[in-house]
Amino acid sequence: MYQTETFIRIRYAETDRMGYAYYGNYATYFEVARVEALRQLGITYRELEDEGVLLPVSEYSIRFIKPAYYDDEIMIKTMITELPGVRLKFSYETYSGDTIINRATTDLVFVDKHTGRPMKCPAHVLEKLAPFYPKGSL
Amino acid sequence: MYQTETFIRIRYAETDRMGYAYYGNYATYFEVARVEALRQLGITYRELEDEGVLLPVSEYSIRFIKPAYYDDEIMIKTMITELPGVRLKFSYETYSGDTIINRATTDLVFVDKHTGRPMKCPAHVLEKLAPFYPKGSL
Amino acid sequence: MYQTETFIRIRYAETDRMGYAYYGNYATYFEVARVEALRQLGITYRELEDEGVLLPVSEYSIRFIKPAYYDDEIMIKTMITELPGVRLKFSYETYSGDTIINRATTDLVFVDKHTGRPMKCPAHVLEKLAPFYPKGSL
Amino acid sequence: MYQTETFIRIRYAETDRMGYAYYGNYATYFEVARVEALRQLGITYRELEDEGVLLPVSEYSIRFIKPAYYDDEIMIKTMITELPGVRLKFSYETYSGDTIINRATTDLVFVDKHTGRPMKCPAHVLEKLAPFYPKGSL
Repeated sequence: MYQTETFIRIRYAETDRMGYAYYGNYATYFEVARVEALRQLGITYRELEDEGVLLPVSEYSIRFIKPAYYDDEIMIKTMITELPGVRLKFSYETYSGDTIINRATTDLVFVDKHTGRPMKCPAHVLEKLAPFYPKGSL
Repeated sequence: MYQTETFIRIRYAETDRMGYAYYGNYATYFEVARVEALRQLGITYRELEDEGVLLPVSEYSIRFIKPAYYDDEIMIKTMITELPGVRLKFSYETYSGDTIINRATTDLVFVDKHTGRPMKCPAHVLEKLAPFYPKGSL
Repeated sequence: MYQTETFIRIRYAETDRMGYAYYGNYATYFEVARVEALRQLGITYRELEDEGVLLPVSEYSIRFIKPAYYDDEIMIKTMITELPGVRLKFSYETYSGDTIINRATTDLVFVDKHTGRPMKCPAHVLEKLAPFYPKGSL
Repeated sequence: MYQTETFIRIRYAETDRMGYAYYGNYATYFEVARVEALRQLGITYRELEDEGVLLPVSEYSIRFIKPAYYDDEIMIKTMITELPGVRLKFSYETYSGDTIINRATTDLVFVDKHTGRPMKCPAHVLEKLAPFYPKGSL
């Protein structure tokens, strides 16, 4: 299974009146984490879009365990749990130090920019992911 | 069941490169919707905090059906599906015109600001919600 | 001089660890205020863009006097101080209750979406603004 | 003069419908840049706050030359132009590749958290900055 680690420092702008990183900001942190996960594979999300492939999020779910605070450097472990078809599924675990502070998943859908319709994962993306999954799974 | 409707116009700041309201912003829209839902009951979230009651989100889940676009005025139907105990559960349906564009839920936990520990829903909140639920449910 | 008043309630997402509305969020509040100012004249910013006219901000300046807090409903007085040429200039005063909390200005530039070059204010915008300015100023 | 360079990658969340980094987000980028500038001197903004010293922004001004786009890695050159008294003044130049894309300034005020009143720059901050300024300027 392909997985990566991304470090993100909580900005003052992202804190709220409780002193927490606002709960809504994790969607952005996971966006950063999955874009970096793809970049480390040699896949640039910006280039995908420029090729006419959009990847909107169709589902997002998060369970909070503890908050993060201003200036904390959180670590997001990003996992692509299976080879993508029409959907690309990410799981995330967020850590502050050694402590897990939340778990989340996002499902993204490959969409053809010109038709607006779902499409299969582009072949060059699949090729880069395939080596991380058991034989026969492609 | 207590339910309200809140209208929110999508800001330019909240759009993204696809022209969509960024998926992460719905967490903020739902915050606005649930705070307004409580306000219409005579409960001010700010005052709750000032009384020492925090309400952090413990779970958030959303399923996107369609995007919203810049300057769209979306309508969020907010439902409190059951009388709160330690948790206060909201369900949301977001509409753009007559079309539902996503469904979501958030679970919030009543937390005592001073001890940092979960607590029961304050009595004055429960009293305002009780009339909306079947007899015997309090 | 054309001027309008817009009311905006500070969202929890927009607060920071000090309990203030984060200083960076005023740029968004002023965006909302100027779009509403134009809408009250019958000019929809979204339609301008759809016609091929972009209005990026070229300068923004703000002087803070006091902070706004969570759940405050601030009032932004928006003024178009002169008839636009290539630039459209807005001044803003932000009030919390009767107290002014900041003053700001933004300069926007009319840009032709297709050429990427500055252009004159479209005639239909000028016609709607002209009645608010002294004769001979058109 | 003390100056540092900070690199920030534009997030999808931070783009707008024009494909630009939204103009309001630079306030956040400059926050990150000045916090990193202080950190490289051994001054942690979070610790300052914990010691009871707040540093709200009193003035912010930006002149945009060009936009930044999604996934661009911008470089912010942060300069503390003079030794702080009650105010700490930062100037910024933002670059995308070799091209300057905007110039900005922020004035921050040292405020005593407990009295809410302006105060002089703490001695331990001044000591770390002093070596970067001509003799006699302290």
